[in-house]
Amino acid sequence: MKSTSIGTQVVPISAGPGRLRLLDQRRLPREETWVDCRSADDAAGAIRSLAVRGAPLIGVAAAWGLALEARRLARSAGFEAAWEEAASRLAAARPTAVNLAAAVERMRAAFRASAGGAPAARVALLEAEAERIEAEDRAACEAMARHGADWLARRLGGEPGSPLTLLTHCNAGALATAGIGTALGVVRALAAERPVTVFADETRPFWQGARLTAWELARDGIAVTILPDVAAASMIASGRVSAAIVGADRIAANGDVANKVGTYGVALACRAHGVPFIVAAPRTTLDPGCPSGATIPIEWRDGTEVLLLDPAGDSPFSVAPAGVPALYPAFDVTPATLVDAIVTEAGVSVPPHAEELARLLAQP
Amino acid sequence: MKSTSIGTQVVPISAGPGRLRLLDQRRLPREETWVDCRSADDAAGAIRSLAVRGAPLIGVAAAWGLALEARRLARSAGFEAAWEEAASRLAAARPTAVNLAAAVERMRAAFRASAGGAPAARVALLEAEAERIEAEDRAACEAMARHGADWLARRLGGEPGSPLTLLTHCNAGALATAGIGTALGVVRALAAERPVTVFADETRPFWQGARLTAWELARDGIAVTILPDVAAASMIASGRVSAAIVGADRIAANGDVANKVGTYGVALACRAHGVPFIVAAPRTTLDPGCPSGATIPIEWRDGTEVLLLDPAGDSPFSVAPAGVPALYPAFDVTPATLVDAIVTEAGVSVPPHAEELARLLAQP
Repeated sequence: MKSTSIGTQVVPISAGPGRLRLLDQRRLPREETWVDCRSADDAAGAIRSLAVRGAPLIGVAAAWGLALEARRLARSAGFEAAWEEAASRLAAARPTAVNLAAAVERMRAAFRASAGGAPAARVALLEAEAERIEAEDRAACEAMARHGADWLARRLGGEPGSPLTLLTHCNAGALATAGIGTALGVVRALAAERPVTVFADETRPFWQGARLTAWELARDGIAVTILPDVAAASMIASGRVSAAIVGADRIAANGDVANKVGTYGVALACRAHGVPFIVAAPRTTLDPGCPSGATIPIEWRDGTEVLLLDPAGDSPFSVAPAGVPALYPAFDVTPATLVDAIVTEAGVSVPPHAEELARLLAQP
Repeated sequence: MKSTSIGTQVVPISAGPGRLRLLDQRRLPREETWVDCRSADDAAGAIRSLAVRGAPLIGVAAAWGLALEARRLARSAGFEAAWEEAASRLAAARPTAVNLAAAVERMRAAFRASAGGAPAARVALLEAEAERIEAEDRAACEAMARHGADWLARRLGGEPGSPLTLLTHCNAGALATAGIGTALGVVRALAAERPVTVFADETRPFWQGARLTAWELARDGIAVTILPDVAAASMIASGRVSAAIVGADRIAANGDVANKVGTYGVALACRAHGVPFIVAAPRTTLDPGCPSGATIPIEWRDGTEVLLLDPAGDSPFSVAPAGVPALYPAFDVTPATLVDAIVTEAGVSVPPHAEELARLLAQP
């Protein structure tokens, strides 16, 4: 059944004053369990362990984690120093997504601006800031969905209402944001108006596509088919894919895009066959401090996470022979020249991205 | 410990008059169990179920399966017709690897040439033909190893004896042939002379890299590291990969290469970064009957094999939500323009491949 609005039934975060609950994405789609955070360190742990993931969502979770931490510490001696230290630990939980650092910085600025106020007032102020960060993320998703769907419909042309097949890698959906998703927000907007099938790369080694994208699209009644990552290039070559659309963890000033490892391969195949390759990400993902992708820190995770096929499952096991190591670069960089459009809440950047991204960033 | 000769301790087939045992590659590296074949249909079943795989090896296994079938049927009424029917069923076990059809055709030719002879003599003749097919495959592997290693050493230049990192996809090794392997035969030849590290793509969905390539190289003392398939492009982009070398299931007359799905993505990344992309395959893999890759039949397997992460394991399970389908094109086609060298036992073809392959095929 097709959803006719651009909403979603998928909400991975429940937060408010004194409360931060995160859907444990390691356990999806097996079961819907929630991680109850009681401190900023709990939030950092959830981020580090991938219980919560997705660049925009970890920013929102971090903001609420710091609001929670302020409430927890407000009556303690050394409130300020302890809070600042917790903020530093939280910012360091994962390196690649700039949204995490950006959210922590915003919370820090709010905290410092409230210096000298009563602790309870400072807590309320941080809670209001976290609420704002979450609401902005939700609104950004909706704006991206509209901009992206309009741009892609124009780019693809064809009959109005004709069917589309959209390939995505990893999960840039409702499970990665506080709203309808970045890439999958665009998918939802298109699916509200025409038949859409999504090819979800399974996204080794953490299976975000097979587990999360498949689950959230099925829940919203959008047709989804799982592809082994290795099949993306030949499916694109075969003409079955209308466009590929992915999220981003950090976008450099020149438009180079760091995203889940495997994204670069999708972009190469799209370019080889003239299939549009689109990145959807809120402006918090843009990092003018990184001139190019070469300066984006790439997280390398433990190779054990590659070898254990289902690390969060009940019986983790390996198909590999004992003693053989594995490498796990968690992200890769797609050069700006391969990116046909970067969809933000302020509009769509097309190449050359450097100027256009600067313009989008400068908008209110 | 580095092996100093170009041998291998890995032997996946044990066959002779009245005997065909195949190492069950679905169970590796967990355990070394053997499938005992008693008929051509047993061999076809082992091929279809992937207990035995690898284009050259399924040709050898099919040849022995038909020798076995002749011995089984020799005293029956309707020997000829029954044998021919078994040959047809065996040829149809898997569609993409041309070696299977080629081996069956050779056995058929031998069988027909012996028409009118005593059944026992015909059986002996088929057993001799199977023995010849196996010996030729073994010799072809050794010749490919020498040609490929020489070509690559010249192409890469640099200090003699300097270390190499070679990326491979799937398993084109001793486990895929009756000898030292095609792509991994070249690797073994290089590793006998200089430090070699192999990056083995894990090769979803059947894990031939993580299970088989890792196992056979480790057994022979060659350094191997497992990569998630999604990491191949960024590892190639990073400059860490000296060359990529893979096998083939069928090579069209123009040099287009059908090989395990995911190969095309590796080739695209190699070309984008000027890294040599090499295919090693015996001439039985060349199919002058296919003018281009577009005419190579691509096997689509059941999507369930994608969803069940360890289909041959003791507790197959899925990480995907129930009811979401998956696609499993088992092979893809890499266009000849992306292939820097096709290594055969008769020599090395470089672009334009069409003429060079015809010349290599015409050699004795």
